[in-house]
Amino acid sequence: MGKIIVVYYSKTGNTEKMAKEVVKGALEEGIEVTLKMVEEINPEDLTAYDGIIVGSPTYFGAPAWEIKKLFDDSVKYYGALIGKIGGAFTSSANIAGGNETTILSILQMMLIHGMIVQGTTEGGHYGPVAIDSPDEGVLKECRYLGKRVAILVKNMKGEK
Amino acid sequence: MGKIIVVYYSKTGNTEKMAKEVVKGALEEGIEVTLKMVEEINPEDLTAYDGIIVGSPTYFGAPAWEIKKLFDDSVKYYGALIGKIGGAFTSSANIAGGNETTILSILQMMLIHGMIVQGTTEGGHYGPVAIDSPDEGVLKECRYLGKRVAILVKNMKGEK
Amino acid sequence: MGKIIVVYYSKTGNTEKMAKEVVKGALEEGIEVTLKMVEEINPEDLTAYDGIIVGSPTYFGAPAWEIKKLFDDSVKYYGALIGKIGGAFTSSANIAGGNETTILSILQMMLIHGMIVQGTTEGGHYGPVAIDSPDEGVLKECRYLGKRVAILVKNMKGEK
Amino acid sequence: MGKIIVVYYSKTGNTEKMAKEVVKGALEEGIEVTLKMVEEINPEDLTAYDGIIVGSPTYFGAPAWEIKKLFDDSVKYYGALIGKIGGAFTSSANIAGGNETTILSILQMMLIHGMIVQGTTEGGHYGPVAIDSPDEGVLKECRYLGKRVAILVKNMKGEK
Repeated sequence: MGKIIVVYYSKTGNTEKMAKEVVKGALEEGIEVTLKMVEEINPEDLTAYDGIIVGSPTYFGAPAWEIKKLFDDSVKYYGALIGKIGGAFTSSANIAGGNETTILSILQMMLIHGMIVQGTTEGGHYGPVAIDSPDEGVLKECRYLGKRVAILVKNMKGEK
Repeated sequence: MGKIIVVYYSKTGNTEKMAKEVVKGALEEGIEVTLKMVEEINPEDLTAYDGIIVGSPTYFGAPAWEIKKLFDDSVKYYGALIGKIGGAFTSSANIAGGNETTILSILQMMLIHGMIVQGTTEGGHYGPVAIDSPDEGVLKECRYLGKRVAILVKNMKGEK
Repeated sequence: MGKIIVVYYSKTGNTEKMAKEVVKGALEEGIEVTLKMVEEINPEDLTAYDGIIVGSPTYFGAPAWEIKKLFDDSVKYYGALIGKIGGAFTSSANIAGGNETTILSILQMMLIHGMIVQGTTEGGHYGPVAIDSPDEGVLKECRYLGKRVAILVKNMKGEK
Repeated sequence: MGKIIVVYYSKTGNTEKMAKEVVKGALEEGIEVTLKMVEEINPEDLTAYDGIIVGSPTYFGAPAWEIKKLFDDSVKYYGALIGKIGGAFTSSANIAGGNETTILSILQMMLIHGMIVQGTTEGGHYGPVAIDSPDEGVLKECRYLGKRVAILVKNMKGEK
């Protein structure tokens, strides 16, 4: 069985709300899920999971520095994340407020680790984006992100 | 006196509505403005203006191919746009539907031409984004984009 | 058994050389591969493949308009590419000449189609980039891209 | 007279070498230039300059977290950087190793601050990129970046 970790940074609680829904979506697929604030983990911890989903507020069009530090420090484990499944989400103050670039920056970090990511034809195409507090539509997108990553984790392990 | 051209592609009329407001904003600065559909111009035409603002629907996270073709063909005039002022806007079906990447793709084409672009602390930071038909808030952002580019054109000409 | 299509646009032949190596890499995995110039295909053709790899020269930091037109026209088949595996490569005149943004623009189009992409820890992290004519190192990266997509196609079909 | 600050993070010394050349290029324009390591400044310091140029190694396709932290903390001065001139440069281990996305991430932070940036038709279009130790061609690009920002700072002040 595969395992997923959802890592997030949240100051106002919006990104945290999203993170909890991502967890729910993954759990619906019967997969083991761990939820952690970025302050609680070390980059080494990431190597133990088959799927890694990262959430951050949108700060100047990119993830919070705490998230970036996790990835910078993960260079010690470069190579150990190849083939893992990734996903990303963000909460933002404005439509077009730098949220797509925030998600894409996270996905790019994952691609550089040799990870695998999937987009979606529904809603935020690169990943869920909340404008201020996430509404029901966005929470649904978050659950769907968790579900999608969980399915990929299972498929990549040949457990379809 | 500086001159601005606003070039757009529009199928449903949403991007066209935005283009017309961008024109209004620039006119308020007392600058000469030309509005053209992308089908109506040649890349050579761009060389006659001090400011170039480009609008497109969001199609798969990037501008419509008609806009891309204009830039691809503009390679014949490579070097002739250095120092001109640029700006971009888009209409999109979804929040986080690829609209930031559409605007950034246009701005990147402009940077590669050696052009100058400015962001904004208000609304769509890289440029205005309408979700479906542009509402009054977005139309205001469009006017502000026109005004901002016009001011830069005047400043760069030393006509503050 | 899965099938892959490699679609490219090439004017000087550099992108074509890369495309042929991508094909070789995929063939080494014993998978069926079709090579097509973008002028030879319709968007409907894409729906018949499990993996889609797209190559383009870097023109103003984004793929050639012919590639963009293929994706714009593919909106008729929106939903039909969900879960397929994607990859991208480019040839460029300069280091930092807009080649990463070209590859990422293609990958973003794929993500918006709901497709799956993977990065690599070796060489061009988002996909292979040739500066002028591809040297042996880049050709190797191209073969590895073909191989990587082929493996994912097989894995996703549960044929590891 | 305008003033420029060049802020950088460097571990191996490659980004520092680039930073020093950026300073030289700006000085050639007879403008006052300050060079600072990111560890030496506070975000408030940025408000005292007309031009801000930021350099970072490429870490996972984005600037080092120390640079991101500077921008995250700069939110206290949101609005105070509007209309300032920006520029960015990076050193990287690989061609296509995430260096364009690193520079663009910095430029996007600047756009979100309402700043003004310019690309170039020569070399790294979004900003200079060194692969490992910067060679003479890249050092020249760095001097040209300093010069270009200095000229813009002077022009925007009407001192052409």
